[in-house]
Amino acid sequence: MIHIAVDGMGGDYAPKEQIEGVYKALKSFDDIHLTVFGEYDKMAPYLKGEHPRLSFVETHGVIEMGEKDPIGAIRKNRKSSMAMALKAVKDGTHAACVSSGATQALIAGAHILIGRMKGIKRTAIAPVLPTTDPKKPFILIDSGANVEIKAEYMVQQAYFATVYAREVLGVESPTVGLINIGTEEGKGRLLDTQVASLLKTHEAVTFYGNVEPKDVLSPPCDILLSDGFTANILMKTIEGTAKGMGTILKEELSRGIFGKIGLIFSLGNLKRFKKRLDPAEIGGAMIYGLDGVLIKAQGASKANGFYNGIRQARDVVSKDVLGKVKTIIEADTPS
Amino acid sequence: MIHIAVDGMGGDYAPKEQIEGVYKALKSFDDIHLTVFGEYDKMAPYLKGEHPRLSFVETHGVIEMGEKDPIGAIRKNRKSSMAMALKAVKDGTHAACVSSGATQALIAGAHILIGRMKGIKRTAIAPVLPTTDPKKPFILIDSGANVEIKAEYMVQQAYFATVYAREVLGVESPTVGLINIGTEEGKGRLLDTQVASLLKTHEAVTFYGNVEPKDVLSPPCDILLSDGFTANILMKTIEGTAKGMGTILKEELSRGIFGKIGLIFSLGNLKRFKKRLDPAEIGGAMIYGLDGVLIKAQGASKANGFYNGIRQARDVVSKDVLGKVKTIIEADTPS
Repeated sequence: MIHIAVDGMGGDYAPKEQIEGVYKALKSFDDIHLTVFGEYDKMAPYLKGEHPRLSFVETHGVIEMGEKDPIGAIRKNRKSSMAMALKAVKDGTHAACVSSGATQALIAGAHILIGRMKGIKRTAIAPVLPTTDPKKPFILIDSGANVEIKAEYMVQQAYFATVYAREVLGVESPTVGLINIGTEEGKGRLLDTQVASLLKTHEAVTFYGNVEPKDVLSPPCDILLSDGFTANILMKTIEGTAKGMGTILKEELSRGIFGKIGLIFSLGNLKRFKKRLDPAEIGGAMIYGLDGVLIKAQGASKANGFYNGIRQARDVVSKDVLGKVKTIIEADTPS
Repeated sequence: MIHIAVDGMGGDYAPKEQIEGVYKALKSFDDIHLTVFGEYDKMAPYLKGEHPRLSFVETHGVIEMGEKDPIGAIRKNRKSSMAMALKAVKDGTHAACVSSGATQALIAGAHILIGRMKGIKRTAIAPVLPTTDPKKPFILIDSGANVEIKAEYMVQQAYFATVYAREVLGVESPTVGLINIGTEEGKGRLLDTQVASLLKTHEAVTFYGNVEPKDVLSPPCDILLSDGFTANILMKTIEGTAKGMGTILKEELSRGIFGKIGLIFSLGNLKRFKKRLDPAEIGGAMIYGLDGVLIKAQGASKANGFYNGIRQARDVVSKDVLGKVKTIIEADTPS
């Protein structure tokens, strides 16, 4: 049985959507046991009776999504749903934690309450994002944990992504591309040239080369790597462009009488179009570099997105992703 | 009369589309004289007879779009269409140059053949990009000239954009936003906090604050500023997302019989949708920081895109954008 700790209170639509996601996950997988950390009174309206593989732990207080000082909040409130779910991983009673709570608080809390894997200097946020091919999503690192970082730490993050892609996404030989302003060797900042030359020589990763984001929805590799500033800008630019294009598309498609007729016939397909671009369909972001499994589901997760986060946590545990990364890190550390 | 030097040979579809753009510009504006620098034999098939405000200068060789060593190429080939068009600005015979040739060669050539404006340390590439509001495009700096740069040089580039937005785009009080991973003060890298604090205190610019790219197609300001690495990544991510979404949209909209019917009715609107997102509809990128006006039209420019580049050059000259920037730079320089 895989025991997963669930933060029932974090997220824009908590606890309703989280609870729904929990029930969906229990139904889909019979090898998981879920412990929901939260305030029972607030969750009660959404509960659908008892379940042999479902437990609750009463918590006090929530780290709010708009919290001005998220790091201070998690430090101070150790009885919050987020803190207690994280602590359950540290204690060893649970193999993974899933939360859609405020990212900064979660990362800070994970450092305090779970701690980093031995030999790892920096954590990373690694979402799995959709491409034009529904069967080939890509992993983005680092979507925001480290604004400034050394080349060698980025390479460690590439190990995680490689193991994750192989074990969880089922990619036989995952390749790592470096996000860059040109594909030629030597392009980019000093950091980029350093990372490129390290990736080229490391046995544990297969370096594809530099990748320009003009192929960001049809990348030629399985993993796109950059620092937490650049990759965060890239991720938010995808989001902003998709949102803006959606607005323009809606405006243009409903223009004129022919347009309105066309739109009626296209509604079903447009819904599918939107769904194909929704990262929640794939899952949350794994936090790389911790001494435990933590999945950050999107703040705006609905039931399905949160369910996907739980599914992801289960996959990471059952495939022993952390154990496999540890083997690489140990081989890498000079003895 | 505004004399503009046109590189007739640079660009993916040169010289055909460039020549067509030239004729269109001559028809639209009666205060411009265009000198096309190129190889007459290659351009001849596309010429539509003589024009009192059109001249030709014969050149030798072209800096190819896929040139492996663009900087070396422009250094060596001073008789190329690009080099001679740039030199015409330096000589003072022409007020501006428009080229859709290879970017790196053009920037290098501009440094050698035109030179920087007094007091300016770094040039920048500043495209004008579409948003969800067709009447409100935004200026992006720097889309790729400076991969690594000091805060004070970025602020100088914000002067250019501010004057350009006011004079050419007709924005009464242009605002500058700093591309960042969060909107709160103090977010981002050391560079970003330095730029933010400089922008806040400068009289010549109005600082909006940090802007996250999740609003990149509906930005709350007129100018988006970052270093040449970040802004290039952002621009290419917009391109990649738009391209990828186009692919998915095409796939989904044509699904099923209802979809196919809907698509027939929607074709006209989908064409408009595509057009609204085409940066060529707005114009090329101005190169900020030179001691002369240089417009880089997109490499893939068709006639209309190149025409828009010429229109832009005319606007920049007639509104004396460079003179107005010089006044700010001089006031800024400690005497």
